[in-house]
Amino acid sequence: MWVDLSEDELRAYRSSQTDPADFDAFWADTLAESRRHDLAVSVTPIAVGLTTVEVFDVVFAGFDGQPIRAWLRVPARRDERLPAVVEFVGYGGGRGHPMENLLWSSAGFAHLVMDTRGQGSGWSTGDTPDPAGTGPAFPGVMTRGIESRETYYYRRVFVDAVRAIEAVRTVDVVDAERVALYGNSQGGGIAIAAAALDGHVSAVVPRVPFLCDFRRAPVITDRPPYREIAQYLKAHRHSVERVHETLQYFDCVNFARRASAPAWFSTALMDGTCPPSTVFGAYNAYAGPKQITVWPYNEHEGGGIEDDAIALEALRGVFDRAERH
Amino acid sequence: MWVDLSEDELRAYRSSQTDPADFDAFWADTLAESRRHDLAVSVTPIAVGLTTVEVFDVVFAGFDGQPIRAWLRVPARRDERLPAVVEFVGYGGGRGHPMENLLWSSAGFAHLVMDTRGQGSGWSTGDTPDPAGTGPAFPGVMTRGIESRETYYYRRVFVDAVRAIEAVRTVDVVDAERVALYGNSQGGGIAIAAAALDGHVSAVVPRVPFLCDFRRAPVITDRPPYREIAQYLKAHRHSVERVHETLQYFDCVNFARRASAPAWFSTALMDGTCPPSTVFGAYNAYAGPKQITVWPYNEHEGGGIEDDAIALEALRGVFDRAERH
Amino acid sequence: MWVDLSEDELRAYRSSQTDPADFDAFWADTLAESRRHDLAVSVTPIAVGLTTVEVFDVVFAGFDGQPIRAWLRVPARRDERLPAVVEFVGYGGGRGHPMENLLWSSAGFAHLVMDTRGQGSGWSTGDTPDPAGTGPAFPGVMTRGIESRETYYYRRVFVDAVRAIEAVRTVDVVDAERVALYGNSQGGGIAIAAAALDGHVSAVVPRVPFLCDFRRAPVITDRPPYREIAQYLKAHRHSVERVHETLQYFDCVNFARRASAPAWFSTALMDGTCPPSTVFGAYNAYAGPKQITVWPYNEHEGGGIEDDAIALEALRGVFDRAERH
Amino acid sequence: MWVDLSEDELRAYRSSQTDPADFDAFWADTLAESRRHDLAVSVTPIAVGLTTVEVFDVVFAGFDGQPIRAWLRVPARRDERLPAVVEFVGYGGGRGHPMENLLWSSAGFAHLVMDTRGQGSGWSTGDTPDPAGTGPAFPGVMTRGIESRETYYYRRVFVDAVRAIEAVRTVDVVDAERVALYGNSQGGGIAIAAAALDGHVSAVVPRVPFLCDFRRAPVITDRPPYREIAQYLKAHRHSVERVHETLQYFDCVNFARRASAPAWFSTALMDGTCPPSTVFGAYNAYAGPKQITVWPYNEHEGGGIEDDAIALEALRGVFDRAERH
Amino acid sequence: MWVDLSEDELRAYRSSQTDPADFDAFWADTLAESRRHDLAVSVTPIAVGLTTVEVFDVVFAGFDGQPIRAWLRVPARRDERLPAVVEFVGYGGGRGHPMENLLWSSAGFAHLVMDTRGQGSGWSTGDTPDPAGTGPAFPGVMTRGIESRETYYYRRVFVDAVRAIEAVRTVDVVDAERVALYGNSQGGGIAIAAAALDGHVSAVVPRVPFLCDFRRAPVITDRPPYREIAQYLKAHRHSVERVHETLQYFDCVNFARRASAPAWFSTALMDGTCPPSTVFGAYNAYAGPKQITVWPYNEHEGGGIEDDAIALEALRGVFDRAERH
Amino acid sequence: MWVDLSEDELRAYRSSQTDPADFDAFWADTLAESRRHDLAVSVTPIAVGLTTVEVFDVVFAGFDGQPIRAWLRVPARRDERLPAVVEFVGYGGGRGHPMENLLWSSAGFAHLVMDTRGQGSGWSTGDTPDPAGTGPAFPGVMTRGIESRETYYYRRVFVDAVRAIEAVRTVDVVDAERVALYGNSQGGGIAIAAAALDGHVSAVVPRVPFLCDFRRAPVITDRPPYREIAQYLKAHRHSVERVHETLQYFDCVNFARRASAPAWFSTALMDGTCPPSTVFGAYNAYAGPKQITVWPYNEHEGGGIEDDAIALEALRGVFDRAERH
Repeated sequence: MWVDLSEDELRAYRSSQTDPADFDAFWADTLAESRRHDLAVSVTPIAVGLTTVEVFDVVFAGFDGQPIRAWLRVPARRDERLPAVVEFVGYGGGRGHPMENLLWSSAGFAHLVMDTRGQGSGWSTGDTPDPAGTGPAFPGVMTRGIESRETYYYRRVFVDAVRAIEAVRTVDVVDAERVALYGNSQGGGIAIAAAALDGHVSAVVPRVPFLCDFRRAPVITDRPPYREIAQYLKAHRHSVERVHETLQYFDCVNFARRASAPAWFSTALMDGTCPPSTVFGAYNAYAGPKQITVWPYNEHEGGGIEDDAIALEALRGVFDRAERH
Repeated sequence: MWVDLSEDELRAYRSSQTDPADFDAFWADTLAESRRHDLAVSVTPIAVGLTTVEVFDVVFAGFDGQPIRAWLRVPARRDERLPAVVEFVGYGGGRGHPMENLLWSSAGFAHLVMDTRGQGSGWSTGDTPDPAGTGPAFPGVMTRGIESRETYYYRRVFVDAVRAIEAVRTVDVVDAERVALYGNSQGGGIAIAAAALDGHVSAVVPRVPFLCDFRRAPVITDRPPYREIAQYLKAHRHSVERVHETLQYFDCVNFARRASAPAWFSTALMDGTCPPSTVFGAYNAYAGPKQITVWPYNEHEGGGIEDDAIALEALRGVFDRAERH
Repeated sequence: MWVDLSEDELRAYRSSQTDPADFDAFWADTLAESRRHDLAVSVTPIAVGLTTVEVFDVVFAGFDGQPIRAWLRVPARRDERLPAVVEFVGYGGGRGHPMENLLWSSAGFAHLVMDTRGQGSGWSTGDTPDPAGTGPAFPGVMTRGIESRETYYYRRVFVDAVRAIEAVRTVDVVDAERVALYGNSQGGGIAIAAAALDGHVSAVVPRVPFLCDFRRAPVITDRPPYREIAQYLKAHRHSVERVHETLQYFDCVNFARRASAPAWFSTALMDGTCPPSTVFGAYNAYAGPKQITVWPYNEHEGGGIEDDAIALEALRGVFDRAERH
Repeated sequence: MWVDLSEDELRAYRSSQTDPADFDAFWADTLAESRRHDLAVSVTPIAVGLTTVEVFDVVFAGFDGQPIRAWLRVPARRDERLPAVVEFVGYGGGRGHPMENLLWSSAGFAHLVMDTRGQGSGWSTGDTPDPAGTGPAFPGVMTRGIESRETYYYRRVFVDAVRAIEAVRTVDVVDAERVALYGNSQGGGIAIAAAALDGHVSAVVPRVPFLCDFRRAPVITDRPPYREIAQYLKAHRHSVERVHETLQYFDCVNFARRASAPAWFSTALMDGTCPPSTVFGAYNAYAGPKQITVWPYNEHEGGGIEDDAIALEALRGVFDRAERH
Repeated sequence: MWVDLSEDELRAYRSSQTDPADFDAFWADTLAESRRHDLAVSVTPIAVGLTTVEVFDVVFAGFDGQPIRAWLRVPARRDERLPAVVEFVGYGGGRGHPMENLLWSSAGFAHLVMDTRGQGSGWSTGDTPDPAGTGPAFPGVMTRGIESRETYYYRRVFVDAVRAIEAVRTVDVVDAERVALYGNSQGGGIAIAAAALDGHVSAVVPRVPFLCDFRRAPVITDRPPYREIAQYLKAHRHSVERVHETLQYFDCVNFARRASAPAWFSTALMDGTCPPSTVFGAYNAYAGPKQITVWPYNEHEGGGIEDDAIALEALRGVFDRAERH
Repeated sequence: MWVDLSEDELRAYRSSQTDPADFDAFWADTLAESRRHDLAVSVTPIAVGLTTVEVFDVVFAGFDGQPIRAWLRVPARRDERLPAVVEFVGYGGGRGHPMENLLWSSAGFAHLVMDTRGQGSGWSTGDTPDPAGTGPAFPGVMTRGIESRETYYYRRVFVDAVRAIEAVRTVDVVDAERVALYGNSQGGGIAIAAAALDGHVSAVVPRVPFLCDFRRAPVITDRPPYREIAQYLKAHRHSVERVHETLQYFDCVNFARRASAPAWFSTALMDGTCPPSTVFGAYNAYAGPKQITVWPYNEHEGGGIEDDAIALEALRGVFDRAERH
């Protein structure tokens, strides 16, 4: 069943999330701090038994110079520098197995899949620790360090993501001018944030994105991971405002207001995990060129492989136009 | 939690499924009937936007000459005839989207994914109807036509599977001497049956196979799809013996007794969908060379991509040895 | 809890279902085709151990001449031709056991309970196969053949229902001028359709009817069987419009617009299976004389035996008036 | 899935329930007390709109002379005194609507359905209060007054049941020598108890009976109503032995040891509500002639209408033999 | 997620519950009848092993003179008469263990916790029977005797509560002029009713109160205990109006209209058990001075210990001001 | 229902957990490292509005000198040094609100409740961060740092617990010779570990203890928190042995083998969270004097307040005997 506003209402909906005056300063400082560390990209070929695709184990310096792992996959046969797709992954997963996730490289792109620190023990595995501790938190990462913007978990992740873009641009087979961001759910939210923070990506593809409209999301759905925030505030009754002060620095609604790359969003009207109004909260605020696919009978899987087909065509168009310049 | 016998008990377990005297005759007649129809293989290239892999829309004559669809994926670059992996899919799914499922072709094999007739509206889509009707049945395909071996749904599917093997052997890029069967869950069960019925495949990889040990499965688990049988018998109280008479012609325990290809099984001790004793019922009866991976903390996902890594290494070994002959 | 609109809103609600121009032509053609087959009614007495009621096993030619079974129950003692109640049954059930369902015959009516083809393996049993196959479908019958109006499952069922009315009129103990239709849930939907298609029944009693307002139902409830449609479209994302084009030929809202017999509907405000607005979608469109009982604290059981008590009194009134003419 | 012992183990199983020395004295005293009150049977015809069956509203003096209601249904046409079936109903229900439950009267028997005091607000309705209060109790009737055998709820119900048999024997259309007891679940338990206490019934039909093997039942199933006992003891940790001292006076295992009428039990191997070992606990202890139908794929519905068909044939045989004497 | 109206709507919401003309007369008569019995307070010290708090087992005559038990806890060291907090407990619980619930006495108050008759077998235990029987009722106490205001369960409980206040005033260590009422959920509802009926208490603290707005509550939530009413009416379809006629004499909305003591309510926006609009139904109607704490991220636990901290400060203020007079 | 072995089997059960050769060396080193930091106990009175109990906010140096918070509650009136109860709390909770949990201080003991680092956002709140990061982990703390014994979360917690004992001994109102440990579930496990590591406590009260028998627990129950381990291993299939190598240094079975203080265990036969065999795994291995209370009808609440009553009597006995020495 439809879980949220009607499609007309969705298109008219505007998020109530506010834009803190020092949002940009906070992020400029945050990035500057981490950029003091050398990016330290290492790219190591690994044998996985494939013949059409080569896989590399990538490490680069993320937040505070901490090592972040990724897989880079490229077509075995390639003549020129390749456009790149940087992928961020959904909640609980990691970069997975080197043998998985062959679409983007089989389509002729360089494909970097970044681990999400401390995650990677759910639907896919990860290899990257999160060296930071946390105050009292509800299980999951949503409330780790949430009592201040400095310690909040996603501060570290968003910096990792920006550094991943910077890292992929340094790889010799990659055309640094043609980098797109792609992600599903949490990965979609990270993609929006990273696009805004980096400022130079060619395109961004947030599929059923998470991390949007934090004032609204946890009060209109009972499902994790948004529910983790509600669970935390259920216990920490006096932290409501402090938590929301933190979250406004991480809400993709606020990043969307700062983005300029062309974007291909998707959302689903039966998605109780990332309800469509929270996605439209970000989409309607998005400052760059944009399109959104609305799947009327889907849940959090959204368009699934159909979203990929749309994205593949869109990215090929973007990259081809970019190349011709 | 572990849902079944201990691993020691599993290794000692023998299925109580009986082997009807005319099992082989029934299947010989069934195949002979369908083989009267021309195989009528058509292989049409389709554009899916990939560069390293080519995809073909395949149609061939399955049970009673009815058209069955499949995707054939092959590496774009290839010098010689390729060994082939024929994949059968899990319950409720279909051959899916041409852009999905790129592992086997990226590994350098020809990869045929057969639609399961009348399914393909669940976790992936299909394009093949099942023209046969049914008596009163419980929702799902498990009890369609179950009151006789002639009309039972899987009679048609197993013939389709044998014909898929025959079809892939006719494709020009394929080395007809090197064909392996692969499948997950229902696909694993179909693979066992087809391996036994075909008699000439190079290897079979049944991962967490379904369709095994029909006397036991529906009374030790409450989960679909085995539960569909119990639900049918709950309503049709007088059909218990008739249904089990039908099922003994379709039980992979009986096919396993007739198989000769080397096999790589897997099973998981927390798998409540295809409980490990039912898998061991088939595995312990399997007449060919065999190995089984037991995943102690997994559910019906079994080894997931790790099972694929094992299979890839195993199949490469089998195919390489076959080639040297 | 109340699951839908308030009662005031329900009474004002109008379905958005549209009425295809060739709706009547489609059904006229469909019925004409099946009527080419002889009705071939057979009525066989069976011994069930009752003394006040006699039971007959009835077979007649339904869609495309295919045999459909029913039970006919009549009071053992009868002096004249009896008015008849034709009953269609709820989703998943069948005509059941000859010994069940004695109300209408104990009230002095002839009572015919029609099997629903291919169903009858759930809450009651059936004996009638559905010889037609299907394209890829979600488990259950809701999406069998749904990609075209010609192949859709309910095309066959609605013809069976019309033929059942015609069949009961041929039985010697029945007064052909006094036939009412009765059904619960799916049976209620079939009753509305059959009343409209037949055009001559004395009354129709749709209790908490299903098969109404197909644009709305699958997006306001998560419960099967409406959910089967949503599940199908979740997989077959490109079939949304095609499926709805099919469904408009089967929506009881459109049949209600064509009905003329007096009708006694019921609905329940806590019914999440057939939400009350979908029932009111049909009720408010119903073109004949009509009444509706609204049960405020009931779920899909609606008024249960109380609905029967209302129906019994209503039908006795209708039949008595009809007899006096 | 099967929820309990294997069928072989079930047949060998013996309940650990003990037989208190003063069991018979307790019940003799209890019955004697209530029999001091006049039975005060009133039988009032009511109009329900049926033609083959007549329905009477019956009231009689149950426990402590308190009025208990029942429906009596008899065939409208009858020539001689009829054998009678006294039915006790399942947990939560009541005698229901006069128009329901027509099988036994349609088969030519007098059929008395007794209300269960204080119940009758669940799957069917009742009209009989329970004037007795209760100590602290868990919701439901299982623990009302459970701290002593004098105050326990079922003391009153079992007396009501014995008095119902006595009442039906006084009705003029009934042949007092031919009275059988019938019941499903709770009704089956009451039937066993009443058969033992009355001592003169012609037969007893306990279908999937409840109220058996109280030491075992609440520790092998989590489902209500047995769970109510476990829930009570969860709160009242010091009452474990006192509660079991009470229950041994009400356990059908102990009544079964005292029964002499021929009995037709049924049980289902997937019944998690009244697990089969508890039924076999009573069945194996049953002192009279006995048969049991074991349904391998059924849950608490047991044999459903098939159990009725078996019972009807069995009772007709018993009654016919009794008549010939 | 938020389960009800927005906070703005909640503050504007007015219950539709009506105020029967003889409400006051009914309760005046009811109290007068029970007050004919001597209050018969007994206060017995018991040894529980605490050193800072003394515990007494209290019995007094409640409804119709029936004995009601309570614990009285007082600080071991005390110089003068103490203000008292009378606590009523939540649904299913009882006065509990003497060793539990030490807050109010540790804060220097006399603390009386009244048993709720017939309950006390759930989350805490009780020791007080309910000697009254019941008509057919749904499991739980919500529908016991609900067919008339005379027999309804809460008539007895509300009288018990008024008598508890009168009883605590007689205890020698208590300052009879300073008695406050406190309760959570059901206890909060009882507190509102008792405050209105007694008319002289110093303050009332209804936390997430139950028993409010009976027309609305069972149709906006599916959770017990409100659901018990809906379940009863689901079976007893003809009792809808009679039940609501009874309930209007017990609805805390109507008691709130008659209350004068200062009140500290609380409610939670995610509370599906006692939805916030039903609490605001009572709060907005409350005639005395009032405050309400709204917890945005809490469920039925409301403010938990934070509500206690607020209450402790409030009561200390009330009692201090009262003492100074 | 009973979820595990029978009580006889439980008493005979011996855990298969092995005892690593360097277990004692590992813990000696670990403690020595942390003891290099000054204990730095601070004890600050706070005003919470109670009159019989005083509450202090305590901070001390835990693992690696990191600050750990606790509440210390003592009777307001006290003449001599008090015996102390150190409490560790259950999974997900924290030291809670200063106003809660008054039993032990009201009984005349000093009562220290230690925060569990990084937890305290569930059923009660905490105030202590965990400064350590983690590798990829499943939500919750069970798998934080689990890939090595050095980084495992409970290494830090167990050291905190030992230091809490040392801290309470330094408080002036406490009799350092009389310190007992108490805990429920996770708190019970921590108590066993801390008792073994400290070596000098007067008694230990592990109620339904968690953290026992790590080989068995996650394969016999599906419930969190043991399930977190299974979920981690489901994703990290190659870590099974490494994880179990870590866990053997933290299994309370191994600590129990080293304990000498008299112990009062409890367990419940319906406890699916900490199944009784895992508790008996530790209990049967426990090297000191011991008793266990087995609650037959309880779940994870175990004996609840009844366990406290037993513990209070036991501790008073232990402390009195200790004082007399």
